[in-house]
Amino acid sequence: MSGPQTPEPALDDQGDSPTDTREEDTAAATQHSHRMLNFSDALLSIIATVMILPVTHTEISPEQFDRSVQRLLATRIAVYLMTFLIVTVAWAAHTRLFQVVGKIDDTLALLNLACMMTITFLPFTFSLMVTFPEVPLGIFLFCVCVIAIGAVQALIVVYAFSFPHLLNPRIGRSAHCGLYRRHVLQIILRGPALCFLAAGFSLFFYPLSYLLMATVIFLPHVSKAAGWCRDRLMGPREPPAHSMEFFTFDLQEPLSKERVEAFSDGVYAIVATLLILDICEDSVPDAKDVEERFHGSLVAALSAYGPQFLAYFGSFATVGLLWFAHHSLFLHVRKATQSMGLLNTLSLAFVGGLPLAYQQTSAFARQPHEELERVRVSCAITFLASIFQFAVWTAALLREAETLQPSVRFGGQEHAFMFAKLALYPCASLLAFLLTCLLSRFSTAIFHVMQIAVPFAFLLLRLLVRLALALLRALQGLAQPAHCAEDPLLPASC
Amino acid sequence: MSGPQTPEPALDDQGDSPTDTREEDTAAATQHSHRMLNFSDALLSIIATVMILPVTHTEISPEQFDRSVQRLLATRIAVYLMTFLIVTVAWAAHTRLFQVVGKIDDTLALLNLACMMTITFLPFTFSLMVTFPEVPLGIFLFCVCVIAIGAVQALIVVYAFSFPHLLNPRIGRSAHCGLYRRHVLQIILRGPALCFLAAGFSLFFYPLSYLLMATVIFLPHVSKAAGWCRDRLMGPREPPAHSMEFFTFDLQEPLSKERVEAFSDGVYAIVATLLILDICEDSVPDAKDVEERFHGSLVAALSAYGPQFLAYFGSFATVGLLWFAHHSLFLHVRKATQSMGLLNTLSLAFVGGLPLAYQQTSAFARQPHEELERVRVSCAITFLASIFQFAVWTAALLREAETLQPSVRFGGQEHAFMFAKLALYPCASLLAFLLTCLLSRFSTAIFHVMQIAVPFAFLLLRLLVRLALALLRALQGLAQPAHCAEDPLLPASC
Repeated sequence: MSGPQTPEPALDDQGDSPTDTREEDTAAATQHSHRMLNFSDALLSIIATVMILPVTHTEISPEQFDRSVQRLLATRIAVYLMTFLIVTVAWAAHTRLFQVVGKIDDTLALLNLACMMTITFLPFTFSLMVTFPEVPLGIFLFCVCVIAIGAVQALIVVYAFSFPHLLNPRIGRSAHCGLYRRHVLQIILRGPALCFLAAGFSLFFYPLSYLLMATVIFLPHVSKAAGWCRDRLMGPREPPAHSMEFFTFDLQEPLSKERVEAFSDGVYAIVATLLILDICEDSVPDAKDVEERFHGSLVAALSAYGPQFLAYFGSFATVGLLWFAHHSLFLHVRKATQSMGLLNTLSLAFVGGLPLAYQQTSAFARQPHEELERVRVSCAITFLASIFQFAVWTAALLREAETLQPSVRFGGQEHAFMFAKLALYPCASLLAFLLTCLLSRFSTAIFHVMQIAVPFAFLLLRLLVRLALALLRALQGLAQPAHCAEDPLLPASC
Repeated sequence: MSGPQTPEPALDDQGDSPTDTREEDTAAATQHSHRMLNFSDALLSIIATVMILPVTHTEISPEQFDRSVQRLLATRIAVYLMTFLIVTVAWAAHTRLFQVVGKIDDTLALLNLACMMTITFLPFTFSLMVTFPEVPLGIFLFCVCVIAIGAVQALIVVYAFSFPHLLNPRIGRSAHCGLYRRHVLQIILRGPALCFLAAGFSLFFYPLSYLLMATVIFLPHVSKAAGWCRDRLMGPREPPAHSMEFFTFDLQEPLSKERVEAFSDGVYAIVATLLILDICEDSVPDAKDVEERFHGSLVAALSAYGPQFLAYFGSFATVGLLWFAHHSLFLHVRKATQSMGLLNTLSLAFVGGLPLAYQQTSAFARQPHEELERVRVSCAITFLASIFQFAVWTAALLREAETLQPSVRFGGQEHAFMFAKLALYPCASLLAFLLTCLLSRFSTAIFHVMQIAVPFAFLLLRLLVRLALALLRALQGLAQPAHCAEDPLLPASC
C-alpha cells in the first residue's frame, strides 16, 4: 500500500489495456477511481466544515452580548451542525454511488467534478434559507440545489450503466442489470423528488416544505437508528432473500472503511488549515505598527502575540492528537457499521467546532475577563469531540467479532492500551471543566496546563503500559500460573 | 486499491502479529504508514499554500495604487513563492525520510505530528524575516525553526534505527545499518547546521546569514538542475558503485509517485477550499441589509452578488479541470523524475495563486473600470499554472521509456488526446490574453466566455477525438495500408 516498496503500484495492470482496441473504441481509458474518490472526499469534508467560519467570525464583545447576538450565534451554530449533517448525507450517497460504479473514465471524472460543484452550493443555499425562513426564494434555491445534485448523480448512473465495464464487476456481469439501474435511480431520485414537491409548496404553504426537506435529510439516519434499535431489541433480522442482489446500494450496508477514513482525514486537515490560516495571516506584526506602538522593539511586539501562539500550540496539539486517536482506532477496525458511521460523523462535527475553541482561547488570551465562559466552551467542544470518538469504539466492541481485529477485542493485548488512548481526552477535558467550577479564578492556568500536559500524557501512556507489562512478566515469572497473564489491566467499566 | 471490492485491504496481514509477544515487547503495534503520510501531505500542502492569503487580502483601491502598495504586493508575492519553495524542500526531505522509515509505530506517529507542527511555523517566521530584514531576531527565529525541524527529524531517524523492523526492509536487513544511519543523519542535519551558522552571523553581519540560508533552500534544486543539464549535455552518468547502497536517500533519486500525487491533490484541494470559504461566508446577504437597501427584495439582493457567483463558477471550474488534467497525466506516469518534480512544483505554485485570480475577477465584477489589468493577471496565472503542467509532460516525453506508459508515448493511442487535454488551458488563456490586447473594451466578456467555454471544450474534446478515430477507421477500411493507422493526429510540434 505505501509508496517506497512498490514504486508503480496497482496501475500497471491497466497500463497496456488501452492499446488493444476494444469494441467501444472510446479512447477513454478506464481508470481506477482511487485518486478521484480521495479528492472528492477532501472536497466534501471541506464543504461540510465550511459553515463553522461564520460561527467563529461572529463578533462578541462582553458589553453587548444581548439577546440578538445570542440568537445570531445560536442560529449560526445550528446552521453549521445541520449543514454538516446534510453534506454527510450527500457524502454517504456519493460513497454508495461509487460502490456501484467501480471504475471511471474521463466523462465520469468530469461529471463528478460537476457533482462536487453543485454540492458546494448546499451550505450557501441552506444558510440563505435559514436567514430568510419565510421567503419562498430561499427554500426554492435550496431545493433547486438538491435537485441539481440528484440530476448530476442520475446522469452518472445512466452513463455508467450504458458502459457496463465501468460498473462494479458483480453488478456489471449480473443478468439483472436493468433492474439494478432502476433500483439505484429510484434511491437517488427519491430525495430530489421530495424537494421538488417542497419547492412547489414553498409558494403557498412553506411549513410543509420544511417538513418534506426534513424527511429528506433525516430519512437515512432515522432508518439507521430504527434498524439498530430493532436489532438490539429483537435480535438480528433474517436477511431477505434478495439482499445479496442489492448488496452495494442498500442503506443498511456499512460504508467503505477507506472512504470513512479519507473523509475523516479531510475534516481534521481542514480544521488544521483554519488554525494555520489564522496564525500565519494575522500574527506577523506590521512594520509601521512596531515602530509606533513598540518603539521599534520586535521582541515586545511578538510577546504581545505570545498568548495566541500558546493557544495555537494547544489547539493544533488537540487536533493532531484526536486525529492520532482516530487513526489508532481505525487501524484496528475491520469494518465500519452504520452506528459507528453515525457516531463518527457526530465526533467529526464537533472536531469541526475546534476552530471555535481556538478562537475562544486566543480571545481570552487578549481579554482576561470573561475567561471562565470561554474556557468552558473550549472544554465542552473537546469533550464532545472525544467522547463520540470513544463511543465509536464502544459501538465497535458491541459487535467486536465482525468489526475489530483480534488484538483490540476484550482480552486482546492492545485492548487496555486502546482504551487508555481513547479515554485520555474525554477524561482530561472533563477534569478541566470540573476544576474550573471549583477553582474558577485559575481557569486559564488550568486550561493551559491541560493543553500542554495531554501530549506528554500520550507519550507517557506508552511508557506506563510498557512498565505495567514488564511488571506483569515479572509477576508471571514468580507465580507461573499461565492464566494470570490474560490481561489484568483490562478496565472493569468497559 | 479502491474500497468496494476489498473491504479489509492491506491491513489484515498485520492483524494478528501484535498478539505474538516479540522481543521488543513494545505493545506498540507496527503500522503501515500509508494513512499518516497522506495526512502529512495534506498538512504540508496547506502550509505551502497558506501565504497566498496575505496576497489576496492586500487592499488595492484604484485611487491609491502608489509605489508603497506596489512594493507591499510584490513583497507578499515573493514571500508566497519563496515559502512555497521552502516548504516543498521540507516536503521532499520528509518524503525521503519516510522512504527510509518504511513502517511506523505510535511514537513515530507522535514525532511526525511534532514535525508537522514545527513546519507550520516556517511560513510565519519566514514572512517575519522578510518584513524586518535587518532585525537579527527575524533571522534568528527562522533559523531556530529550521533547526527544530532538523532536530525532530533526527529524533525520528535515531528512533527508527534503534528498532530496525520499522525501517525499509532493504535497509533494515542490510549489514551496513550503522553506515546508513550516519549517512541519513548527515543529510538531514546539513541544513540545520548551516542555519545554526546563519543564526550566529545574524548578530554581527546579517547579509552572510541570507547567503547561508539561500544555500540551504536552493541546494537540492540547484543540484537537481545541474545534474539534469549534465545528463543532457554529456549523456547519463555511470551510476557509482555504491549507488545501490544509498538508493532511498539519494537526492538524485526520483520521489515516490504516490506522494507527488497526494501533495498535488492537497494543493488543489486547499485552493478549492479558499474559494469555497470565500463564497460561503461572504455571499449570504444580511437580513437587515436586505430590508434597508433592497426594500425587502431577496432577488434584488442576490442579483447584486450575481457576478461573484459567475467568478466562483469560473474559478472552481479552472481548479477542477487543472486537477483533472493533472490526474489524467499522472495516471499514465510510471515514475516522476527530478525535473518533472521541479516542474510540477512550479505548476502547483501558480495553482496556489488561483485564489488571487478569483479575487481579481470577483473584484472586477464589482468595479468594472480597471478590469483590463485584472483580467490579464487572471489569464497570466492560469497560463503559467497550465504551461508548467504541460512542461511536466514534455519532460516526461524526453525520457518516455522509463517515465510513461506505452499508450501515451509517441505513436500511442492516447498520445494525441493527452496532448489536447494538456494544451487546452495554455492555449485558451493565451488566446484570451491576446484578445484583450486587441479588443480591450470587451475584456470582461472575453474572459467570461473563456471560463465557460473551456469546460465544454473538455467534454467536446472527447467527442472530437471519437469522431476523428471513426473517420480514421473509415479511411483505413477504404485504403487498407496498415501502417497508416499509426497516429496522424500526432502534433508536429511535440
